[in-house]
Amino acid sequence: VAGRIVAVVDVLRASTTIAVALANGAKQFIPFESPEEAVRRSKSFERTLVLLAGERRMHVIPGFDLGNSPREFTADAVQGRTILFTTTNGTGAMLGLAGARDVLIASYVNFSAVLSVLRAAMKHGVDVSILCAGHERHFSLEDAACAGRFARLARGRLTRVEHNDAALACLMIDRQYDNDIAQLLAASAHGRALAAAGFAEDVALCGAIDAFPVVPVYHDRLITKQGPAGGS
Amino acid sequence: VAGRIVAVVDVLRASTTIAVALANGAKQFIPFESPEEAVRRSKSFERTLVLLAGERRMHVIPGFDLGNSPREFTADAVQGRTILFTTTNGTGAMLGLAGARDVLIASYVNFSAVLSVLRAAMKHGVDVSILCAGHERHFSLEDAACAGRFARLARGRLTRVEHNDAALACLMIDRQYDNDIAQLLAASAHGRALAAAGFAEDVALCGAIDAFPVVPVYHDRLITKQGPAGGS
Repeated sequence: VAGRIVAVVDVLRASTTIAVALANGAKQFIPFESPEEAVRRSKSFERTLVLLAGERRMHVIPGFDLGNSPREFTADAVQGRTILFTTTNGTGAMLGLAGARDVLIASYVNFSAVLSVLRAAMKHGVDVSILCAGHERHFSLEDAACAGRFARLARGRLTRVEHNDAALACLMIDRQYDNDIAQLLAASAHGRALAAAGFAEDVALCGAIDAFPVVPVYHDRLITKQGPAGGS
Repeated sequence: VAGRIVAVVDVLRASTTIAVALANGAKQFIPFESPEEAVRRSKSFERTLVLLAGERRMHVIPGFDLGNSPREFTADAVQGRTILFTTTNGTGAMLGLAGARDVLIASYVNFSAVLSVLRAAMKHGVDVSILCAGHERHFSLEDAACAGRFARLARGRLTRVEHNDAALACLMIDRQYDNDIAQLLAASAHGRALAAAGFAEDVALCGAIDAFPVVPVYHDRLITKQGPAGGS
């Protein structure tokens, strides 16, 4: 992934949570592989400036301030704060991307905002990859569909696009559901598991296209909101 | 995969090659991870009874009798012989399945023969998995499509079928191409690579549905043709 832009998709729910929190005024996210690392790092912050957030098996980690439910990341909760974040799938995928030129955090709720950045990059000849975080290292339908939507809508007249087999499959999955994201999330294994665990409202929020139009950029181990001038 | 039937799909070309060779009278295959292991094992056989076969980067391994081109495995070449076989993707996938109850080698050329065995197992409550070998550890369109065809046609009125996200995606890919396997193989990265390397006729053969109606069973490190009575 060196020298290219990578958009990391984890629709349910890490990418969505990050977009919602940054839209609601959070200062930044720092992703961690394990809860222990996040706790250790929290001690270097003044307590009021930092939140520990994340999940294991979908539920809030014991002792943490927040789980991975985007609805918890309200302006009241997150305004001005640094969020130390660890989730089962999404944060690991982000940490694996240290060599990429730019890493964007992508989901349905910030779809068009991220898409414009990808399109602009492609016009300047920069390669673009979409990385699906998946669900416990398995293929996940909702991430594939969201990646397919990016692949479909990133095609411009000025850009030459080549798709590998996985991208072709993502395009077909996207075409199957088109704008009916609710149906997609109801079909996906992770969506069904979340609904069964009491997170049906999260699932609905995660399918709200463009509800939180921010571009989260992961750079130097920090995820921040890209400013209106296009800088990060 | 313990206690279930697994069908290993490597359409281009290992599964196809095995079906063709067994249909043409080969005695058995023994899969190996590396060419060196296959060569070492060949020394325990009388030379006329054994063939070394396999590929790396699509081409025959230096010193081997045959590559991985199903068209080479004619009755004249393979009749009565044991084939020591190593390929980039397929044989590794097979070797990873030592714990499964039964492993079948599946492709388009022996599709309906394998499907009947899977259907019969499902009627008796045995779980069935389809494993896509993929292409150099990546997702491969043709294996996904073939797996989707199994998932679609294995559904019977007597059986309860649950699909994970990957199976749902395979069903969509299968639906996209339906019986136009030639179009599928022309779209796939591996199909295009094989055609460019001079193996276009192989690709065509690999798409010939039910042309070699045998059921190869992998058991005790040997792949043999299942007999007409249903025993292996």
